[in-house]
Amino acid sequence: MPKIVDHDKQRQWVAEAALRVIQRGGLEKATVRNIAEEAGLSVGSLRHYFTSQAELLTFCMKLIIERIEERFSSLSLNGPVFEDVKQVLMQFLPMDEDRTMEMEVWMSFVAKALVYPELRIMTDHMYDGLTKACHYVVDTLVAHKLAKPELDLEYEKERIYALVDGLAIHHIMRPQQLPTEKIERIIDQHLRSLCLDDKAMA
Amino acid sequence: MPKIVDHDKQRQWVAEAALRVIQRGGLEKATVRNIAEEAGLSVGSLRHYFTSQAELLTFCMKLIIERIEERFSSLSLNGPVFEDVKQVLMQFLPMDEDRTMEMEVWMSFVAKALVYPELRIMTDHMYDGLTKACHYVVDTLVAHKLAKPELDLEYEKERIYALVDGLAIHHIMRPQQLPTEKIERIIDQHLRSLCLDDKAMA
Repeated sequence: MPKIVDHDKQRQWVAEAALRVIQRGGLEKATVRNIAEEAGLSVGSLRHYFTSQAELLTFCMKLIIERIEERFSSLSLNGPVFEDVKQVLMQFLPMDEDRTMEMEVWMSFVAKALVYPELRIMTDHMYDGLTKACHYVVDTLVAHKLAKPELDLEYEKERIYALVDGLAIHHIMRPQQLPTEKIERIIDQHLRSLCLDDKAMA
Repeated sequence: MPKIVDHDKQRQWVAEAALRVIQRGGLEKATVRNIAEEAGLSVGSLRHYFTSQAELLTFCMKLIIERIEERFSSLSLNGPVFEDVKQVLMQFLPMDEDRTMEMEVWMSFVAKALVYPELRIMTDHMYDGLTKACHYVVDTLVAHKLAKPELDLEYEKERIYALVDGLAIHHIMRPQQLPTEKIERIIDQHLRSLCLDDKAMA
């Protein structure tokens, strides 16, 4: 009887192996041979699942985005509103090992996407997601009347967006200088600065 | 008579060629052959100036840092104080072609430094410079009594630091979404938010 292999599961298995290889050695180590070895497959069968390196990398990026989306759908946002919006932002920050690994690998993709436009679709997808999250955060604070009425909303959305990405990069580059507790404190303090004094704690 | 070649100038010439190669094709295109061709030199003479790729890349990173330092030393900081500190931050942002090119190439170095610790010395050097600039900005606002007295200075320094890097990355990834005018407006607005209302305009 022929062995039945779940094609989608196998692709995911390969992509996860690729992410580990990239984290350890960067994109230049993401050769078919290295990834096949890490996945415990032959080079031939790896080529069966991914016909080009671009296809494999795009799949890896999609996998990272899916993981973030999964974390989102499992978030229990049931208040207080201030804590909920904070939780939303924290999903994009390297607060644990998984998220740190994702960010580290993602940095390589971002650098590569600067010169390979075919990878832009995925980086744009990620940036759209983070942009949406930042809009959600500001709009939710406004909708619940927690936000100071004088806020320049467009500016606040861009500011949170830049702040989140800047903190993420500084943590993965120099975790000692910017430990996760400090990231959380900065996000918390920043969000509070957008809120009416008596409302943020409610 | 033997040809006299200025060794330092020639190294700089090679590094500049390397930066162009990296900007066009990313680090993976930064091979000895490609860089020699771009510089109009033989592979042999390039090897004479740089004995390893790590040495060449480190030199390229140093070149970028030197360029930023040169821009700094030519800044005429003679007030108003608010405009001066803004100018300091703008040196780290991709406001023109040169700075955009530097940032794009730097992104590749940062991604590579995550897996090659020998490149960390240079990324640390850059991050130390940006950190120092952020401290300077906040401390100067305080020293000139422009800053709101209730500011949490340590937090404000970290926040500016993250903001500058986040804005820089978002511009090089998606210049249409975050044009330079918008970057300047965000930096301006952020700095104003740290100042006493009547002082920022002075």
